[in-house]
Amino acid sequence: MTVLAVDIGGTKLAAATWDGALGEVVRTPTGEDPWAALTGLLDPLAEEVQAVGIGCGGPMQWPSGRVSPLNIPAWQDFPLRERIAERYGVPVRVHNDAVCMALGEHLAGGWGGQDLLGVVASTGVGGGLVLGGRVVDGASGNAGHVGHVCVDPDGPVCTCGARGCLEAVARGPAVVAWAREHGSSAVDGVALAREAACGGEVAVAAFARAGRALGIAIASVAALLDLHLVVIGGGLSQVPELWSSLRTALSRQSRLAFLDDLRVEPAALGQTAGLVGAAALATGDRWWSGW
Amino acid sequence: MTVLAVDIGGTKLAAATWDGALGEVVRTPTGEDPWAALTGLLDPLAEEVQAVGIGCGGPMQWPSGRVSPLNIPAWQDFPLRERIAERYGVPVRVHNDAVCMALGEHLAGGWGGQDLLGVVASTGVGGGLVLGGRVVDGASGNAGHVGHVCVDPDGPVCTCGARGCLEAVARGPAVVAWAREHGSSAVDGVALAREAACGGEVAVAAFARAGRALGIAIASVAALLDLHLVVIGGGLSQVPELWSSLRTALSRQSRLAFLDDLRVEPAALGQTAGLVGAAALATGDRWWSGW
Repeated sequence: MTVLAVDIGGTKLAAATWDGALGEVVRTPTGEDPWAALTGLLDPLAEEVQAVGIGCGGPMQWPSGRVSPLNIPAWQDFPLRERIAERYGVPVRVHNDAVCMALGEHLAGGWGGQDLLGVVASTGVGGGLVLGGRVVDGASGNAGHVGHVCVDPDGPVCTCGARGCLEAVARGPAVVAWAREHGSSAVDGVALAREAACGGEVAVAAFARAGRALGIAIASVAALLDLHLVVIGGGLSQVPELWSSLRTALSRQSRLAFLDDLRVEPAALGQTAGLVGAAALATGDRWWSGW
Repeated sequence: MTVLAVDIGGTKLAAATWDGALGEVVRTPTGEDPWAALTGLLDPLAEEVQAVGIGCGGPMQWPSGRVSPLNIPAWQDFPLRERIAERYGVPVRVHNDAVCMALGEHLAGGWGGQDLLGVVASTGVGGGLVLGGRVVDGASGNAGHVGHVCVDPDGPVCTCGARGCLEAVARGPAVVAWAREHGSSAVDGVALAREAACGGEVAVAAFARAGRALGIAIASVAALLDLHLVVIGGGLSQVPELWSSLRTALSRQSRLAFLDDLRVEPAALGQTAGLVGAAALATGDRWWSGW
């Protein structure tokens, strides 16, 4: 079976065929007309595929695949699944990009085991859950939203309206904003990471604050789910200054004996995890509970 | 198929046969010699059963069923599963009592749906998870430990050693201790609940503090798992003063659109939930993933 795997983000689109191995990955900017960019990318690949699996930024309706990605303003309640199915005449499955990342890491990350939380720490903080060797979807396909685990009930207000969500503290723009309030002149996360690498105290403190929040949230989730593996991807996972405070918070907050072997590691697959997961969605019912 | 369902707590033991319906429940105090009490209770019931399902207080090794219940000091690494299997010559399955409660509520609580978090708020704060119509066990059978979700990283130290766990704030003895520090003379939770019912300000505040912690933890778990039903049992769930602050915290902290229909309700089954769940463990592999 050959399927087409697609990863849709606010900045770029990526796709590859999958026939037991991932073919060459093609990419294009998302741009102002994402539908034109997407079909331009997929048309040459879609001829011989029997199904399409798509990971897309949320929020979305699941399993209908109507998407309203925060970072793609041109799509509001856009019937992505239906439109792709019409165009290519094959079954299409759409899930959250962080769910696809978690599934890809589970399948191809070389971790072993049956359980995994995948975290994507980037513009937002998303996640996906594999438990007992199955994707956890939740009632509306939104399971894995680790970004809205509370890490401080008196903390900053999140975009969702609650206080002290992990995402309110640890998403990239919040880290940069906190650093700028404390005297950094970094204009974005990449610049702030450079400041931290050069020993800038405010930059280091900003990433440490995010790492602590991640450690607290991960300890909560690990205790709740008796979970022993968490992998973190996304831009923030590249910043060494985040990891030391994450590990300190984790060792303070994760004290139950059954969590002694809890591992928290950088994602193994880099940019292809989402494509591997999207391909798995398309290849079999094992990974898909939607209709 | 007739099975024997058993619920083992620090104060009392309960058992009943199950043949599609729960037989008459028999109870006895746990006492100083829990094995004698247990076999005295089970011997008259065990003759015609084909399997035994047991819910027991943790911690325990799962699925081996070696138990070290916090509230039964006589049992340290006690091979409960093995001993019961030897005595009655039938297959035995042992799981956490809160997991059995959650499973019982899922099966017989009349809630509908495929997903549920069951919380037992009592001497500790335990829990069990049913997702997608299956029990979530976790790698070592400890999934559902909602009591160790962090609700305040600067909060009181928990018995587990971490800071600000739900259990550190909301377990019965912690609620009473907080109230006594603030001027209440209540000697236990029952007395404190009476003070609250009579309008005692400190008692009301003590339960409100516990309710707020429950609301924060439940909002985190609901977001993480896209979960729409939480049921709460245990002594604290009987205190009306806890529920209003729980609901206030929940509505503040649970703001994602997909959680608009999140319900948090008192457990439906009362004292038999654990027995119904324990019976289900014994009746079929659908509810049991251990060997």
